[in-house]
Amino acid sequence: MIDLTLIGIGTGDAQQLTLAAIRAMNAADLILLPRKGEEKSDLIAVRRQICADMLTSATKVVEFDLPVRRAQGDYLGAVKDWHDAIAACWAAQIAHHLPDGGRLALLVWGDPSLYDSTLRIAERLRGQGMDLCVTVVPGISSLQALTAAHAIPLNALAEPVIITTGRQLRDHGWPVQADSVAVMLDGGGAFQAVDPAGITIWWGAYLGMVQQALIAGPLSEVGPRIIAERAALRARHGWIMDVYLMRKEAK
Amino acid sequence: MIDLTLIGIGTGDAQQLTLAAIRAMNAADLILLPRKGEEKSDLIAVRRQICADMLTSATKVVEFDLPVRRAQGDYLGAVKDWHDAIAACWAAQIAHHLPDGGRLALLVWGDPSLYDSTLRIAERLRGQGMDLCVTVVPGISSLQALTAAHAIPLNALAEPVIITTGRQLRDHGWPVQADSVAVMLDGGGAFQAVDPAGITIWWGAYLGMVQQALIAGPLSEVGPRIIAERAALRARHGWIMDVYLMRKEAK
Ligand SMILES: C[S@@+](CC[C@H](N)C(=O)[O-])C[C@H]1O[C@@H](n2cnc3c(N)ncnc32)[C@H](O)[C@@H]1O
Ligand SMILES: C[S@@+](CC[C@H](N)C(=O)[O-])C[C@H]1O[C@@H](n2cnc3c(N)ncnc32)[C@H](O)[C@@H]1O
Repeated sequence: MIDLTLIGIGTGDAQQLTLAAIRAMNAADLILLPRKGEEKSDLIAVRRQICADMLTSATKVVEFDLPVRRAQGDYLGAVKDWHDAIAACWAAQIAHHLPDGGRLALLVWGDPSLYDSTLRIAERLRGQGMDLCVTVVPGISSLQALTAAHAIPLNALAEPVIITTGRQLRDHGWPVQADSVAVMLDGGGAFQAVDPAGITIWWGAYLGMVQQALIAGPLSEVGPRIIAERAALRARHGWIMDVYLMRKEAK
Repeated sequence: MIDLTLIGIGTGDAQQLTLAAIRAMNAADLILLPRKGEEKSDLIAVRRQICADMLTSATKVVEFDLPVRRAQGDYLGAVKDWHDAIAACWAAQIAHHLPDGGRLALLVWGDPSLYDSTLRIAERLRGQGMDLCVTVVPGISSLQALTAAHAIPLNALAEPVIITTGRQLRDHGWPVQADSVAVMLDGGGAFQAVDPAGITIWWGAYLGMVQQALIAGPLSEVGPRIIAERAALRARHGWIMDVYLMRKEAK
């Protein structure tokens, strides 16, 4: 039997760790750290540092190479194949390091509930007959790091907010029934798909990390600046993760 | 000049505190704790305990009575008057305890960005000419405590999610453009306003607290159970806070 704990670690700043996260790390027999290839090496560096700083127990830390996602073909199909491949990797690591069962922990970026596939991959292993008990430790998400950095609320008073992806925003435009829209997983500038009149944007990249960058203002004014800054930062650091909140003036 | 730090403390479990939250508490000269009346005394008890357990510095902790919100008349008007009254309370406490300025901290339930008025109240003080610098420390929200307790993702794969209130759900029904709907601030059973066919619900009350209660399943089956359980828990504890996520089967 494998006790799997998915530990939300926040978005790069070790100060975002909760006491529960630190406790769960130390209670694990094994922490698996995925390597995602060269250009995202800053992300594994954060996880390595967190382990080095926070582990006071005998927890074993093992790194493994994450399979690469197919870039061609249909998006959802590629994602599903990728999740299958990751599940197979986990199974191999578990068989090797915890042959008699035990407590496995994974350090999940941000919060494990938000646009993260770890829970779905665990479901696959269970579907394949692994005796797996899953516990989740929530973590500070990039969206919370964004609103905190700008010192703004996510929602307008008593109003709804929609959290969506760059792809959805491009394909479907501004969602009806919400004046506040948070966008994650944007390959770049999906906000150009909406009419900027009356919209304010709060943008952040590398939130919680030393490279943190923030821009806010009327979308019509700062939109082009965000596009330029994003490209420059991406070129400089070799990778970028950004998230933004947009709000329409109340009608 | 007042340095105001709004510290997200999670939803009752001190283990949800982040290292940044604990550091910010200890860096403050003054922490103000609002008393919200008898029936919600569990909530101030949590904050008192957090101060007792986490403060290792000379931070002064002062309690004050929060004004009561008008229950009659239009909702938004009552809320705005209430925020004015709270701002006046803060101003009085600040004048009394920090006459020469200093570092003030407030312990905000959950995450300060999510359906919380503290940022808006701080805005009022700034509007009245107070020299106020606001910093936000994000915290685990009740919504994250919910998804973690049920070990479920907030969003379906690559799909949007809407976060809304019981009032909005009652008034506007199921939001178009999102198959996942999270509902907060529900006075009770707003999910009865939607057709339950094909909908799964994950419900949680007192998340992170000793009273924690969870129910999940097809809305048509567990909806009535949630209504009954909510009423029983409310009667037993004198108050209740609950939150839920509903998801429609993919079309
Ligand atoms: C696969 S999702 C994971 C989200 C994560 N579970 C969370 O709670 O933030 C990756 C997306 O999260 C956002 N993101 C994650 N970390 C970020 C950071 N440090 N700064 C800005 N955006 C970030 C970006 O929108 C990115 O495309
Ligand atoms: C004024 S809002 C504050 C939300 C808070 N800022 C957060 O991040 O969770 C209050 C609502 O949050 C939800 N809530 C807060 N604490 C909760 C808890 N411990 N369990 C369940 N729901 C909770 C309920 O929907 C409640 O009506």
